[in-house]
Amino acid sequence: MVSKNQIKLITSLQQKKYRKQHKIFIAEGVKVIQELIDANYILNDLFTTQDDFSSLKSGKTHAITILDLKKISALTTPNTCLATFSIPETKNPKLEGLILALDSIRDPGNLGTIIRLCDWFGIETLLCSEETVDVYNPKVVQATMGSISRVKVVYCNLETELKKAKIPVFGTFMDGKSVYSENLPKEGIIVMGNEANGISSSIEKIVSERISIPRFGNLQLTESLNVATATAIILNEFKRPV
Amino acid sequence: MVSKNQIKLITSLQQKKYRKQHKIFIAEGVKVIQELIDANYILNDLFTTQDDFSSLKSGKTHAITILDLKKISALTTPNTCLATFSIPETKNPKLEGLILALDSIRDPGNLGTIIRLCDWFGIETLLCSEETVDVYNPKVVQATMGSISRVKVVYCNLETELKKAKIPVFGTFMDGKSVYSENLPKEGIIVMGNEANGISSSIEKIVSERISIPRFGNLQLTESLNVATATAIILNEFKRPV
Repeated sequence: MVSKNQIKLITSLQQKKYRKQHKIFIAEGVKVIQELIDANYILNDLFTTQDDFSSLKSGKTHAITILDLKKISALTTPNTCLATFSIPETKNPKLEGLILALDSIRDPGNLGTIIRLCDWFGIETLLCSEETVDVYNPKVVQATMGSISRVKVVYCNLETELKKAKIPVFGTFMDGKSVYSENLPKEGIIVMGNEANGISSSIEKIVSERISIPRFGNLQLTESLNVATATAIILNEFKRPV
Repeated sequence: MVSKNQIKLITSLQQKKYRKQHKIFIAEGVKVIQELIDANYILNDLFTTQDDFSSLKSGKTHAITILDLKKISALTTPNTCLATFSIPETKNPKLEGLILALDSIRDPGNLGTIIRLCDWFGIETLLCSEETVDVYNPKVVQATMGSISRVKVVYCNLETELKKAKIPVFGTFMDGKSVYSENLPKEGIIVMGNEANGISSSIEKIVSERISIPRFGNLQLTESLNVATATAIILNEFKRPV
């Protein structure tokens, strides 16, 4: 059973303001929820229409009707289960190894896909400017397909943080050197810019290495790449064997 | 002015059935519409709230109120203009050069992003199985950002078409050879599979070269890549200088 107050609380968590206030976020679907539990996220409540989590012996599991699940779900087509987890504290990031940094990514699907890419390519730390969409937005959590539990996402003043870095800072620009010709290091911070405006001018000043992905299509007309697919290509170039 | 009948017709075009019946599709936003006009798509009607297309001297341009535009738009936040274009006839594809083939891609955003990638990497022909989402779905048209005008998208019985091919057929599988170690040819058909189920078994039988993208993250847990980012990495590997 889910009470009226619980419905009110859970639906409020679709807004960042209430997630910050309650320090709770929601996750939906067996796969995502199980991966968060496995990664030691603190489970608050689990609502399920089925017997999905029979292994989970705790007073935190509640049966829920499909109708009530629809009320609390952030999805158009609700899954069989929804859980609330505590938002973990983030620690200061260590700026070493290969790191990805996002300068004001706004689309939840893009952030989710980029977190999934970090997980795939073994990037442990993802720096996000404060203007970047919230990682605990239900659409982001869903798009990560569980990868959120394995990538450390740190919100920060990106300018301040990048200025502290003792490793090279890479940024993609139309006039950058081809990512194919560069001798790419094992250590560095790769900055990806906003969907519409690219990297902001204050961040551009801190970039030490300007790189670009060469185009093969019609040079005059081809639109720029979507930021998630551009990130896929850049991470692939940094990580692939030479 | 837009009449009640026009509103009825245009909103019906959000459904594939009516697009097939009327052989018309809709496109929204100055950029996408202008690129379709430039690529010689046949414009039927253009509805605009602004003076965006002053260069377009034809009886096909109609002023529209923001309220009416909202009625005919397929977008949550409508642009300033919407146009209807004739769906061009597709010709039999020539199976030469580097070709991408999609086996039952269902998500409109994924198809749009993949068309944009084809444009970027100079892939001229995109084969789609009949189960793949319709390219003239408004969400696909929008996600292509205009690239739809420069990539030839051909729906076909993929099995029949691939059997005719005299060039190698590549498919991505978990147990395939690393795409980094393969000596990739300039000619071939690359098959990408469905979001949930991958490449279907009937198509798998025709694949002559099984390839895979190696993972760098935690091998046990990392979820597979999103099909659009996997396509980005594969096309990059085929096209990048060795």
